[in-house]
Amino acid sequence: MKGKTIKEIHAGDTASFQKTLSESDVYLFAGVSGDQNPAHINETYASGTRFKTRIAHGMLVASLISAALGMELPGPGTIYLGQTIKFIAPAHIGDTVEARVTVTEIDERRNIVTLETVCTNQDGKVLLEGVATVMPPK
Amino acid sequence: MKGKTIKEIHAGDTASFQKTLSESDVYLFAGVSGDQNPAHINETYASGTRFKTRIAHGMLVASLISAALGMELPGPGTIYLGQTIKFIAPAHIGDTVEARVTVTEIDERRNIVTLETVCTNQDGKVLLEGVATVMPPK
Amino acid sequence: MKGKTIKEIHAGDTASFQKTLSESDVYLFAGVSGDQNPAHINETYASGTRFKTRIAHGMLVASLISAALGMELPGPGTIYLGQTIKFIAPAHIGDTVEARVTVTEIDERRNIVTLETVCTNQDGKVLLEGVATVMPPK
Amino acid sequence: MKGKTIKEIHAGDTASFQKTLSESDVYLFAGVSGDQNPAHINETYASGTRFKTRIAHGMLVASLISAALGMELPGPGTIYLGQTIKFIAPAHIGDTVEARVTVTEIDERRNIVTLETVCTNQDGKVLLEGVATVMPPK
Repeated sequence: MKGKTIKEIHAGDTASFQKTLSESDVYLFAGVSGDQNPAHINETYASGTRFKTRIAHGMLVASLISAALGMELPGPGTIYLGQTIKFIAPAHIGDTVEARVTVTEIDERRNIVTLETVCTNQDGKVLLEGVATVMPPK
Repeated sequence: MKGKTIKEIHAGDTASFQKTLSESDVYLFAGVSGDQNPAHINETYASGTRFKTRIAHGMLVASLISAALGMELPGPGTIYLGQTIKFIAPAHIGDTVEARVTVTEIDERRNIVTLETVCTNQDGKVLLEGVATVMPPK
Repeated sequence: MKGKTIKEIHAGDTASFQKTLSESDVYLFAGVSGDQNPAHINETYASGTRFKTRIAHGMLVASLISAALGMELPGPGTIYLGQTIKFIAPAHIGDTVEARVTVTEIDERRNIVTLETVCTNQDGKVLLEGVATVMPPK
Repeated sequence: MKGKTIKEIHAGDTASFQKTLSESDVYLFAGVSGDQNPAHINETYASGTRFKTRIAHGMLVASLISAALGMELPGPGTIYLGQTIKFIAPAHIGDTVEARVTVTEIDERRNIVTLETVCTNQDGKVLLEGVATVMPPK
């Protein structure tokens, strides 16, 4: 239960977490986050939006990045310093989303690693992208 | 179920969403996001970390911003374009977190609103801060 | 809220618990158990397996036996001593599973009842079978 | 997302999954399994039992074994053939449970691995033990 230290991490290292987003994921996320926007939990409303159906919360999709960082790269012991997110396209219920993190910069002196973070769906379509900064475990 | 249009939004407008983060919020978030990092779901492990106990996922805290944006300001119909997050301090189980969003810039031509986003706990301690960009409903 | 005592139980007594396994059952079980194996929560991955689609966790199916024992036969007050499980076929999301328990042995002196336990799907296909040993309430 | 093949597994190999069992874990497990035995969800009832308080479902504790097998050893692609469980002591809400699996036998010809499985709490107390048989991915 200890992730990689900065000496074990190299530029280009990559990891991912994948899951099919279920309707229950969206509903539980609505309950947990408090974001009960009808775009996510009201099919009647959502059918009249540009997306035509309920979509997953953008922050739910982004949360899969946290799984890849916290469980894989660097893994347990990581301290999450920051995340930028550019939402590009929505995930729909039933989409299989991959959150991939790839190391781009390593600052050994300050123990900070920067990773490019991208979420895609089962068709390879980019749903969001951004940058994570983390402190690996010592 | 329609949020504010850009003409109804002014710099300085503010809204917030508050909730006490329960253990079940953290556990459901772990299940939904896939982030089962022991810092969140293993008290034995967590007692040996710098935080001394289990902490909420940073992205769970950040998700409350989505509630403030999607339900209040601008509200339903909002399209979430981007979010930056700087994680400053962790939320613990039982903390009451407020996510506050405050309008800082309005670009009527492109229909884009920028908001400062801050999450604090019941003691006023800042947990995270960042910037959201959204398209209000037309 | 008191189950049957050993004097009220006879060889051949039987009880069952049935439910349709929903996608949310599988996803909640993944979160609760921590078993996020892609066979259960990743349709893209699962479509490439011998089962062609996501399957329920075997232990989720087996857990329905616990419902039959703890709520029906012997019922509340039962102490679960042991369970053997032979997994034969997977349950799919949407399958209606019946867990049936049938008394095979009664040891009055030690207050131990042995039951044959079988889970089947809506087509009568056996998903798993095994043996439970329990202490009925006194 | 591919676990270890039988050639990569050796007698004595071990892996574990740990989590603190929350009240919500017990309640969600009750909902998912259907086992709403008052020993698990009724504090008034449970205070009158030999355990003095609500306990986690034995099968919930056993389900953590599934996480260790399906995610670590052998990992994704594993087919779960069987599990025996001897319940020894109950887990309480708030206990940190470790499910540890250790390879004891390897049958290369039939592609079957046997593992000893033990769940302990934060004090090292054995909650249950048993034997798992699995087919590692090819």
